[in-house]
Amino acid sequence: MSDLMLVVLGNTEVATIPGISVAGASPELTKFTPPADIEYVLCGKPLIIDAIPVTPEGHPTPAIITKACYELADFPIVAVRGGSILSPKVPFVQITDEHGRDFRRESAVPNVEEIVKNARMFGQELRKFVDELVIGESTPGGTTTAQAVLWALGYRAKTSSASPSNPHQLKEEVIKEGFRRIDADIGCFADEPYKALQEFGDPMLATVAGICLGFDKSVVLAGGSQMLAVSAFLKAAGENLSRFRIATTKYVVNDSSSTFRETAEEIGIEFWTAMLDFSSSAYKGLQDYERGYVKEGVGAGGAVYLAAKNGFSEDDVARKVDELYALLKKGES
Amino acid sequence: MSDLMLVVLGNTEVATIPGISVAGASPELTKFTPPADIEYVLCGKPLIIDAIPVTPEGHPTPAIITKACYELADFPIVAVRGGSILSPKVPFVQITDEHGRDFRRESAVPNVEEIVKNARMFGQELRKFVDELVIGESTPGGTTTAQAVLWALGYRAKTSSASPSNPHQLKEEVIKEGFRRIDADIGCFADEPYKALQEFGDPMLATVAGICLGFDKSVVLAGGSQMLAVSAFLKAAGENLSRFRIATTKYVVNDSSSTFRETAEEIGIEFWTAMLDFSSSAYKGLQDYERGYVKEGVGAGGAVYLAAKNGFSEDDVARKVDELYALLKKGES
Repeated sequence: MSDLMLVVLGNTEVATIPGISVAGASPELTKFTPPADIEYVLCGKPLIIDAIPVTPEGHPTPAIITKACYELADFPIVAVRGGSILSPKVPFVQITDEHGRDFRRESAVPNVEEIVKNARMFGQELRKFVDELVIGESTPGGTTTAQAVLWALGYRAKTSSASPSNPHQLKEEVIKEGFRRIDADIGCFADEPYKALQEFGDPMLATVAGICLGFDKSVVLAGGSQMLAVSAFLKAAGENLSRFRIATTKYVVNDSSSTFRETAEEIGIEFWTAMLDFSSSAYKGLQDYERGYVKEGVGAGGAVYLAAKNGFSEDDVARKVDELYALLKKGES
Repeated sequence: MSDLMLVVLGNTEVATIPGISVAGASPELTKFTPPADIEYVLCGKPLIIDAIPVTPEGHPTPAIITKACYELADFPIVAVRGGSILSPKVPFVQITDEHGRDFRRESAVPNVEEIVKNARMFGQELRKFVDELVIGESTPGGTTTAQAVLWALGYRAKTSSASPSNPHQLKEEVIKEGFRRIDADIGCFADEPYKALQEFGDPMLATVAGICLGFDKSVVLAGGSQMLAVSAFLKAAGENLSRFRIATTKYVVNDSSSTFRETAEEIGIEFWTAMLDFSSSAYKGLQDYERGYVKEGVGAGGAVYLAAKNGFSEDDVARKVDELYALLKKGES
């Protein structure tokens, strides 16, 4: 049996709240980010739009790290549609086509049980022919829904952000407004994890969680804050967390504006850290990862984990990332 | 690495021509057959409609054979949407959502190159973690499009049918009318296999062919006439057929109203025969398989091949099919 990486594509209306997400050059463009990310990884260029996703200041999507690992270590990657607004123009497994709603106004994921059931079925099939599963995601706005879910499950967490200036105050205002909708407070759904996802989550979280429930072997949750929310859900749903690990980047682990380490410990989920270092990169857009831009996404940490499993170091990965960035720059001229 | 079975779901407008297809209780119901088939295999009951697909005279879908093998041998099955009108309500890999057009009026599969490209990408990813691939299908009306493609590629073939009274004359009239649309004749696309698929095929054929091109290891084509068409396409497209085999049922191989053996030999494709025997079945609906009803479908022959690979005989399978049929009957009362 072999390892497999999935990248779950999702969207939430929360991403269109101005200032919430930089996972796309503007809020309106965030619907293109997930398909463009996976198209870039698998095909070398996005198909759904003309350019790879960048932050408003031009920092490249972390898909460039995932792609570097994918090319070096040649592991399989399959896209999964977990509520992205658009389908990617590459083969994908459809779990749900319903995107996440704005939880300030309504339930975020009304069909959470259907999603988890469908995703679980897929996980059950995968267990027959996959050894270790690595699950990443691309879900603009997803650190906000992740934080809302963590709060609802009882963790006073601060999630990371692709921006070096984590919009904490805005995130908290948005979440509190969502809580007011149904008179919720921290820990109100500690024993009702499906409710937490339904009211405040996003379909990517439900999809990843469902796959984890069905694939009852070793799973690497490839991401930062969002995978903390998945872990917290699984624990509340009665899963023993010993077969799960988070794999994320040092940028998330070292993010002092977030409570990653503390919350991981509180939940009781182990994590592996990709010790990437772009300080020697030829390109400012990548050097800026060292200053807190972007940090993680598209399963970057998990991809580095798989690269390491196949004998490639973080230095090998960083070198490959620079090569890919050079190609992107060439393509622009 | 492990084996994997795919079931490609497709539709063609040709199925709605009265008398052409019995893969559904009526022509209008044939759009439900592919999703209902795979839902029955994976979930034990269809979700998209209330009853499993049957022929107009009540014979059960060959999905019952596939399901029997799936339950005995526990191999993984994943649904692939290769142009089915409807999505199944189970996880599926989307290759194309465009169904096949009526080739008497227009090109059958205008986006054939896009489908093959997408399917090839999927096959390439699968090769990294799958050992042997078994590909079945559910495509009402597909034996007619298969015959049209075979003719266009130069084979004077007569394909099988789920009906014991193979509607040969009607099929030939329909195909000749399609040929007249573009002044085609037998062998007109012998060197242009993509044209053959584009003008006269269906999206399932394009999907299976594309996956085969990308998955450059051992493939078992699980079906009868339709897999002859895929084989003929692959050969014309320059593939060495030595890594391919057809696995089908004895009902197809022994169908004297079709040219299965002769055409397989002419193409140069090996085939494995599932020596099923329902003559001792407790149920007339299954005994009638011995009289030429249904014969094959939903990868039945390939599923029996995988069951055999896992140590289960055709007798084991037949016994399990009877058990499943009993459950169906119980569900109806």
